[in-house]
Amino acid sequence: MKEWNKHDLIDLQGLSKEEIELILTTAKSFKEVSTRDVKKVPVLRGKTVVLLFFEPSTRTRMSFELAAKRLSADTLNISAVSSSMSKGESLLDMAKNIEAMNVDMIVIRHGSSGVPKILAEALGPSIINAGDGCREHPTQGLLDVFTIKERYGKIAGLNVTIVGDILHSRVARSNIWALIKLGAKVTLCGPATLMPKGIETLGVKVSYDLKAVLNHSDVLMILRLQKERQQEKFLPSLREYARLFGVNQEKLNAASKNILIMHPGPTNRGVELSAEVADGTQSVILEQVTNGVAVRMAVLYLLLGTKDKGSEEIKNVFTH
Amino acid sequence: MKEWNKHDLIDLQGLSKEEIELILTTAKSFKEVSTRDVKKVPVLRGKTVVLLFFEPSTRTRMSFELAAKRLSADTLNISAVSSSMSKGESLLDMAKNIEAMNVDMIVIRHGSSGVPKILAEALGPSIINAGDGCREHPTQGLLDVFTIKERYGKIAGLNVTIVGDILHSRVARSNIWALIKLGAKVTLCGPATLMPKGIETLGVKVSYDLKAVLNHSDVLMILRLQKERQQEKFLPSLREYARLFGVNQEKLNAASKNILIMHPGPTNRGVELSAEVADGTQSVILEQVTNGVAVRMAVLYLLLGTKDKGSEEIKNVFTH
Amino acid sequence: MKEWNKHDLIDLQGLSKEEIELILTTAKSFKEVSTRDVKKVPVLRGKTVVLLFFEPSTRTRMSFELAAKRLSADTLNISAVSSSMSKGESLLDMAKNIEAMNVDMIVIRHGSSGVPKILAEALGPSIINAGDGCREHPTQGLLDVFTIKERYGKIAGLNVTIVGDILHSRVARSNIWALIKLGAKVTLCGPATLMPKGIETLGVKVSYDLKAVLNHSDVLMILRLQKERQQEKFLPSLREYARLFGVNQEKLNAASKNILIMHPGPTNRGVELSAEVADGTQSVILEQVTNGVAVRMAVLYLLLGTKDKGSEEIKNVFTH
Repeated sequence: MKEWNKHDLIDLQGLSKEEIELILTTAKSFKEVSTRDVKKVPVLRGKTVVLLFFEPSTRTRMSFELAAKRLSADTLNISAVSSSMSKGESLLDMAKNIEAMNVDMIVIRHGSSGVPKILAEALGPSIINAGDGCREHPTQGLLDVFTIKERYGKIAGLNVTIVGDILHSRVARSNIWALIKLGAKVTLCGPATLMPKGIETLGVKVSYDLKAVLNHSDVLMILRLQKERQQEKFLPSLREYARLFGVNQEKLNAASKNILIMHPGPTNRGVELSAEVADGTQSVILEQVTNGVAVRMAVLYLLLGTKDKGSEEIKNVFTH
Repeated sequence: MKEWNKHDLIDLQGLSKEEIELILTTAKSFKEVSTRDVKKVPVLRGKTVVLLFFEPSTRTRMSFELAAKRLSADTLNISAVSSSMSKGESLLDMAKNIEAMNVDMIVIRHGSSGVPKILAEALGPSIINAGDGCREHPTQGLLDVFTIKERYGKIAGLNVTIVGDILHSRVARSNIWALIKLGAKVTLCGPATLMPKGIETLGVKVSYDLKAVLNHSDVLMILRLQKERQQEKFLPSLREYARLFGVNQEKLNAASKNILIMHPGPTNRGVELSAEVADGTQSVILEQVTNGVAVRMAVLYLLLGTKDKGSEEIKNVFTH
Repeated sequence: MKEWNKHDLIDLQGLSKEEIELILTTAKSFKEVSTRDVKKVPVLRGKTVVLLFFEPSTRTRMSFELAAKRLSADTLNISAVSSSMSKGESLLDMAKNIEAMNVDMIVIRHGSSGVPKILAEALGPSIINAGDGCREHPTQGLLDVFTIKERYGKIAGLNVTIVGDILHSRVARSNIWALIKLGAKVTLCGPATLMPKGIETLGVKVSYDLKAVLNHSDVLMILRLQKERQQEKFLPSLREYARLFGVNQEKLNAASKNILIMHPGPTNRGVELSAEVADGTQSVILEQVTNGVAVRMAVLYLLLGTKDKGSEEIKNVFTH
């Protein structure tokens, strides 16, 4: 198996197919840890992981924090509100101060695209991008392809449709990179005002007709609609959006295939999907959450866990 | 000894006398742990306990967090302010997401009565109610009866008076259930506007005359007065309330018995009790706080600690 | 070596030269722990350290939290915003409640001078002052002298200049005490409106001419300027302040010596120092941050770690 030699996880655009596959394989092993009676392995004991969140987040912050704790790392939360950024300190200053305390990793979420990359270039600790602006959210992309692979046994050749506000979605971007590298056929579907110009150059198809694409989709990845987009004139009305691009059971039943339903959460029930679809038998939304912890454990382990991360050593972790 | 087979702790109304007594006995053993040089036993190592607080709280949240840490569990704080509830996610959605991360327990405080019960019915992890609306605050009731039993050696036959805003008090409700099940004689005392109609059907007495009830009380449980009640027209004035139902040393001295003074905190000194009484020799207010950690350790241990929770095994914990 | 017998760390004014030197020696040993692969020693396992911050702080709170975690203590964060102080509870009441939960240490930051001393007199747990009003910030003073000693190999005889708002600076006060006790020659430099009357009685010199003092300074300690001071009429303008007391490379180059540049952070670049100076080769600002963790580990260890804290035992810690 290919060895891991990345120091940071900034985006999926920059990972090879083999690197993504190594993360998925590692995550498979770690998923079992969270089902044990004692959900803890000692691989990151004595490591310090800082969770630096400049946007509110419950699930992503919690998922990283649990992943770190189940690997026995020490965690430290810093949120923008309570931080000394309110004293006018620059982000890079602040990050250099955190680095000076000999931390091993900084997991950062920030509203501006590119911030994690800047930190990775300037700092010694490993940086994980937990979402930057409209750019990428790599661990979300990883947990999504992990979930698809778990259900279908493969990614290559599957028809995956991503529905919604593609323009502003870092989740969509990370998924596009991961899915294309792993050989899926990706279709993007949403209002023309929320579709990035020229996105087809990435190797994806674009459609404005949800009913048409449903007929050949194996997986439907439904994005969260930020309701603010209506005020920003991207949308005529929420009702119109729901009528055209909202996913309900009726539309699913009309499709010729049994489609896997995914959503990164939190859901706007009644807008981008109906409650019936969110809680239905085709939905793997909560399974995505479960897999998020496993994927993040894998990423933390690969970035921090060992110097030589061959597959033998990964197996040994689980004999502790 | 009776074995424990409850999966959640929602209220004291639903516990048997034997179950309450088992918690008290277990808490007695755990109280000693917090006085050790090394305040930690490994019984919940590798368990994940989420503290989900939708109302501000220092002491209850801290008491649960310390209890979990002293049992070696991993803890994770989520407060309503920083949570993605601000993104319009429903409480049940959020809780199902937390569950999907394979957590073992959710300790929840919420302003609406019944929320912990709804979660317990919908979710797999053990749920502890840390206070729901005006309904119950079961660990407060348990720590209160633990404190009384520690001082008097028994509960049965004691005269316990609860003074204040009974109508809105979850502390009062949990205490009423615990005290009655354990055989105490309970009297409620407070303004008629703050006394629930028909409360006598629970097996308690009602009085509107504090001086009269003091003469036959072994324990006086003084409730915190929410000052907002005055704006809501439940009270003519704080001064009038303090004159009639506030507890000062003069009133205590006039009573024929040496009364134990309790308060769930935080106190409004000068309103429901004087500083002299709060800090006096009859007060066990800080002892209640100490016992709170022990009782919560016991509850966490009984809900999560072992499959077979006979008394032998509980003793073994303390030989580690 | 002198034994340690202090129960609290309230200020450096009250420490002897020998006590300060013992902390510095202990910190030297602990500094190495944070550079290990496994940054953790078990000396405070099972101890509870509460971080009680009534002013916003990222770096100081984080530094203490990391110090405690690397010594294997359990930590608990309480910030003023989310605390029940909003319910009108008095600080002492709140602290007594925390004490009642059998915590071992309270690290407190408060806007009012003297608060940590009041807590130390009233409570059993060890109290560490993490900054009180304009009075002292003892661990900052300790990490500053540690950093100077690391660079110069000594403190005695060095010329140390502290520049800025001396009047409101608890950092300046703690440094003055530490530096004088250790034999440095201290000069204070800043606008007359921000210089405490009669400060010379402490054994320091006062100057209002930065260029003049630079010529004989071995160390320049630059204080953060609170921009609010301008509204409060302590300053004519920020530009005027920067012109007279701001430190830039040109002024440093004009000095006859190679001066060590220090700042407690966070910096106001362009006000009290230029970015070039902050990031230049003479700056040890980030080294101060690194040393902060080591010094705090030493203080926590000395206050809590052992009953008999002779040098032999300290060495044994590092063989674990």
